Amino acid sequence: MSERTPAQLPSTAAQSGVHADSGCVYLVGAGPGSADLLTVRARRKLQEADVVLHDSLAGDEVVESLPEDTEVVDVGKRSDERTSQTEINQVMVERSRQGDVVVRLKGGDPCIFGRGGEEAEHLSDADVEHEIVPGVSSVSAAPAAAGVPLTHRAHSSSFTVVTGHEDPGKDESALDWRALADSVDAGGTLVVLMGVGRLEENVHALLDNDVDPSTEAALVESATLESEALVTGTLDNIVERARAAELSPPAVTVVGGVAAFAGR
Amino acid sequence: MSERTPAQLPSTAAQSGVHADSGCVYLVGAGPGSADLLTVRARRKLQEADVVLHDSLAGDEVVESLPEDTEVVDVGKRSDERTSQTEINQVMVERSRQGDVVVRLKGGDPCIFGRGGEEAEHLSDADVEHEIVPGVSSVSAAPAAAGVPLTHRAHSSSFTVVTGHEDPGKDESALDWRALADSVDAGGTLVVLMGVGRLEENVHALLDNDVDPSTEAALVESATLESEALVTGTLDNIVERARAAELSPPAVTVVGGVAAFAGR
Repeated sequence: MSERTPAQLPSTAAQSGVHADSGCVYLVGAGPGSADLLTVRARRKLQEADVVLHDSLAGDEVVESLPEDTEVVDVGKRSDERTSQTEINQVMVERSRQGDVVVRLKGGDPCIFGRGGEEAEHLSDADVEHEIVPGVSSVSAAPAAAGVPLTHRAHSSSFTVVTGHEDPGKDESALDWRALADSVDAGGTLVVLMGVGRLEENVHALLDNDVDPSTEAALVESATLESEALVTGTLDNIVERARAAELSPPAVTVVGGVAAFAGR
Repeated sequence: MSERTPAQLPSTAAQSGVHADSGCVYLVGAGPGSADLLTVRARRKLQEADVVLHDSLAGDEVVESLPEDTEVVDVGKRSDERTSQTEINQVMVERSRQGDVVVRLKGGDPCIFGRGGEEAEHLSDADVEHEIVPGVSSVSAAPAAAGVPLTHRAHSSSFTVVTGHEDPGKDESALDWRALADSVDAGGTLVVLMGVGRLEENVHALLDNDVDPSTEAALVESATLESEALVTGTLDNIVERARAAELSPPAVTVVGGVAAFAGR
């Protein structure tokens, strides 16, 4: 977005000190948790924002780092999700039409299980100016915090990312566990976001599709924050170990040879 | 890393004004290209660095934004790659042992096809203090720049990432194209990094494994930079279109239903 000086603004807006009717929405990735893992661009957009709509994954540390005079709204979708998404869309459109700079702040990257694509579609349909500001995803940041690279010339030349926490509106998993199992068997890395709640089901889905039970696995909770915790093991013991460690969301699970690097 | 004030340094070092023998190495993700897509942490490490070793993917814009008094070394591995990796490892170890703060700057994220894992292993073996600073990967940033989300509740609930530019030392592809084709057929998104040079071979590998030729595809060149370019199509015409558009590396290829959002 090009910046305009007051002299270029429509005269009424410049004189009255209110915004011109040129609001916009930034769909911003908040990164994995630590406030200094925001990008420089994200930090600037947050400083310019009139209102920040953040979800529960955006991270307390990031939210607490916002300027004091910024209007901050927690739109974490924990209950009736469909209503809430509609409301979020409405607020984004209405506020930007009022001339506000709106930041929609999402944990990680807005286009990786963040519904950034859907919200951008909605804004396009409503003819609202918007821009996606990519973020550091916990897909790579959480494993890296535990010393695990997603790829490694000697161990893995691909990785696949799924969410363990699928749309509750779906009756059954949209995931092809046969194909996921094949990719792990072929040496690929599997990354499961938000997978604590369904860890046992997901591990069984892999084992039922003949993945070697001795395949390495690692779970990283609250990566990049002080409360970061790590559980390592293999598919045949990781469920038990995660339970014993009382891991809680959010956590990222890595399955594959590279998981052996965890905590080294 | 805890920071130390001069008073806490060993007296000889403090008196002589040279570094204490407490150098370290940061393996830093430079993001997809635009300098303001560095993280706040990466920007700070670059400002603290005595020497920055960057590869060719780190991006001119990022490199040009470094402080003037920083020693900057281009270690882009274009020729005899094996020798160079050994040399890079040596320089990192030697300079940090001399007390320098070394930043090893890599395009995107250091742990996604960036050999960050291998370099971290080498530093661990050499007992050199080091830290990985994750970055925004072009895996999501390049598609997002073209309006493409990697996941979408209506189109894709997983994505797989491979590199089109495999280790030249390998005789044959380590990739299981059958499994990759299955995941595309199951509605997953496929992302190929550095895939311009091998685009035709990779598209044929998918078609040979029965992926529908009408599957959407998009290529994004130099994402987030002024020279950004986009080519869209389907598997049966994307090779021809990319050739006609004279796309050149670096570019990211996206295959799957979400690619239909490109350029909307």
